[in-house]
Amino acid sequence: VNETQQLARLIVRSQPQDIPAAVGHEARRCILHWLGCSVAGSRQESVQCALAAVDELSGPRLATVLGRKEKLDVGHAAFINGVSADVLSFSDTHPATLIHPGGVIGSAALALAERAGAQGKPVSGVRFLHAFVIGFQVACRVGLSVYPWHYRRGWHITGTAGIFGAAAAAGMLMQLDERQMVWALGIAATQSAGLREMFGTMSKNLHIGRAAQGGLMAALLAGKNFTSSERSLEAPRGFAEVLGHAPDLAAITADFGSRHEILQNTYKPFPCGVVLHPVIEGCALLSTANRIQAGTVRRIALRCNPLVLELTGILSPATTLEAKLSVYHAAAAATVAGQGTLQEFTPEFIHHPDVLALREKVDVVVQAGMGEDEADVTIELVDGRAFHCHIEHAIGSADRPMSDRDMQDKFRGLTAALLPASQVDGLIEACGRLETLDDAAQLASLATARGTA
Amino acid sequence: VNETQQLARLIVRSQPQDIPAAVGHEARRCILHWLGCSVAGSRQESVQCALAAVDELSGPRLATVLGRKEKLDVGHAAFINGVSADVLSFSDTHPATLIHPGGVIGSAALALAERAGAQGKPVSGVRFLHAFVIGFQVACRVGLSVYPWHYRRGWHITGTAGIFGAAAAAGMLMQLDERQMVWALGIAATQSAGLREMFGTMSKNLHIGRAAQGGLMAALLAGKNFTSSERSLEAPRGFAEVLGHAPDLAAITADFGSRHEILQNTYKPFPCGVVLHPVIEGCALLSTANRIQAGTVRRIALRCNPLVLELTGILSPATTLEAKLSVYHAAAAATVAGQGTLQEFTPEFIHHPDVLALREKVDVVVQAGMGEDEADVTIELVDGRAFHCHIEHAIGSADRPMSDRDMQDKFRGLTAALLPASQVDGLIEACGRLETLDDAAQLASLATARGTA
Repeated sequence: VNETQQLARLIVRSQPQDIPAAVGHEARRCILHWLGCSVAGSRQESVQCALAAVDELSGPRLATVLGRKEKLDVGHAAFINGVSADVLSFSDTHPATLIHPGGVIGSAALALAERAGAQGKPVSGVRFLHAFVIGFQVACRVGLSVYPWHYRRGWHITGTAGIFGAAAAAGMLMQLDERQMVWALGIAATQSAGLREMFGTMSKNLHIGRAAQGGLMAALLAGKNFTSSERSLEAPRGFAEVLGHAPDLAAITADFGSRHEILQNTYKPFPCGVVLHPVIEGCALLSTANRIQAGTVRRIALRCNPLVLELTGILSPATTLEAKLSVYHAAAAATVAGQGTLQEFTPEFIHHPDVLALREKVDVVVQAGMGEDEADVTIELVDGRAFHCHIEHAIGSADRPMSDRDMQDKFRGLTAALLPASQVDGLIEACGRLETLDDAAQLASLATARGTA
Repeated sequence: VNETQQLARLIVRSQPQDIPAAVGHEARRCILHWLGCSVAGSRQESVQCALAAVDELSGPRLATVLGRKEKLDVGHAAFINGVSADVLSFSDTHPATLIHPGGVIGSAALALAERAGAQGKPVSGVRFLHAFVIGFQVACRVGLSVYPWHYRRGWHITGTAGIFGAAAAAGMLMQLDERQMVWALGIAATQSAGLREMFGTMSKNLHIGRAAQGGLMAALLAGKNFTSSERSLEAPRGFAEVLGHAPDLAAITADFGSRHEILQNTYKPFPCGVVLHPVIEGCALLSTANRIQAGTVRRIALRCNPLVLELTGILSPATTLEAKLSVYHAAAAATVAGQGTLQEFTPEFIHHPDVLALREKVDVVVQAGMGEDEADVTIELVDGRAFHCHIEHAIGSADRPMSDRDMQDKFRGLTAALLPASQVDGLIEACGRLETLDDAAQLASLATARGTA
């Protein structure tokens, strides 16, 4: 069996009408979510440094840097939008592979949609959604063929497998034929890279950008009949054997048209490790429902899974990174703000007097029987009243996925400070009716910051 | 020991005056040789396709596409010049790692020299040579740390290790500080890619281009303080452990300043497998010395190492690739032409009546005792005369490296059809006195084809 050729054939022969409604729905959510992450990440240092480095290389500035005013050529736009998608570590996750597919696939596809629009042949919303779904599928299926050995070995799978998905989506938007798609997958395979050693540095974000850009480049090259191996996935010196061990090649194409990986996709409601999610949800819920003022709180009593203190036990966090590892901060901040967004993890908020005072009042009791997505929260006031709630499964967990409304709220939280309200609403609306758009590049213009670069 | 930081320190602290004269001499030869390969390769299909794909992405066209009229931004020029360096499989080889370093290091360094010139701060020949020597050293040392397991596993080491050398050379020309150099090496590490499965396709050439471009990109990013791991070579999830097995980390920095890998570099005199080299040399020598006309030959009798028939036994080659695997063609062609250049492996030459007639007259006897670089050649004429020579060690073998004159002849053979004679002479002259150049980018302008793009 030649998996590479089989995969290319499945990609090229796939039709938009083959995509089930539920898959299209999840793809619209995933695209909105990625756009939110990239807009929110667009002012972070990784993005600033990368943009400063590549700006001098930019070709015709056809493509949008999400959340900003600058434009770049399509390759570099895909790169920067991949970096920004990852920088807040707030992306989507395909649990079976730990791939964060949205940013890689989206960044490659959107840049090509803008290119097509500039060439007077816009990519419709239907075609964009279709390419996104298949690109997502390809990245995750390739990932499944080598996971978990590949990830344990030290490969950052979002980069290494993501590039295949980016190449597939880009190739579809360029309408590559089957042979060219084989080459695009091969050119992706032979650029596949990214080490987990980079976690904690800007180069982690680089992986997502380079995978998007490299996948796009693979499609551009294949479109000019630049050749590659036609067995790049399965050959003895191909991707799966060289970057994997005893790969499960069948995972690549099995039930390709009927078992869509995107239906397994998950999203983080809060910008920190998942063990803190039930705590934040409980505190925010009680605070909001009861209009609790920080000064009136006597004690916040938590019962949680033991991992909470093991992973997030920092008592006096000073930085954003430390605050994300502090249950004390998380509980105090969610109580003060009634929410747990990026805002509540900024240095300003961490050092806010109300938060500093309240985190001293957080008592944590861990209990082996509690689920990782479970928490019991009691907020006692100085006037003697107490409010209690029990979060059995935190929002965003497998048992309680985020609703469309939750996704929209997260998107608003990510973008409100950076885009005008009309554009925030416009993006939610446009993603919601993506299949009706004549030109998917509208998403890019709606995600552009106002003013001049 | 932290190898990455140690290596960065060695790179940054190295001074041009630390480079021994013999090392500088070999670097000048290597640079001339690479320029010849890239110019000669510049019209091949890999280059045409790649150029067609990236042209639309090009930023400011500051940099030369060697051997052609087009210009590209520095990143894409490094890419294309890397592709052209490799496309004829005629490059230099570092025998201990099988890396072909010249094209990767040269392409990155030359593009940055052109950038510097455009910014009014030209890179002197002294600095260029220095960066080239150190970049060469870094690529080979990183390669040594993982060879041979890495290569056997399926990694195309010219790409995977080459990118470190390109990053080092580029970083030196950008005058990165030590910390930035650590990051540049890390950004190189996490882009390191290239599968041997691509051999026989254009994507093999891609590896050299992407390594040059990726190394240059690593230096540009690091120059803007884009961070990476500071242990990218040695960490458990770093380059050597993930892409290698039981790596020899000490090889990276041991005797870095005194044991120069470039002194081991080798060059092919003829554009085919080395087992044919003594045959071609012998036939060309007899033909030239005795002004032999093809029509006057009765028989060409060869005694060779058994590998000759094993690897190059094709009787009636029809294509360039087949001709390179045919001792019959090689002997006939070298006798007809008095040389064995690219010209003698073109389809036109392969089907030339004199060559077709003569290859029927080639008799090959293999003999176990003959060296791989040895051949015994007798050309018998119809008039009864016979000429004989014995090649004990073919030119280009370890025992008989190509002289400077041989290198110049090869360079002329590579470039004569594509550049005006004045530029061919100019390049030989400029490489010969590289340390006296005020602006190393002169090499690029001398290697530009005439006319408009």
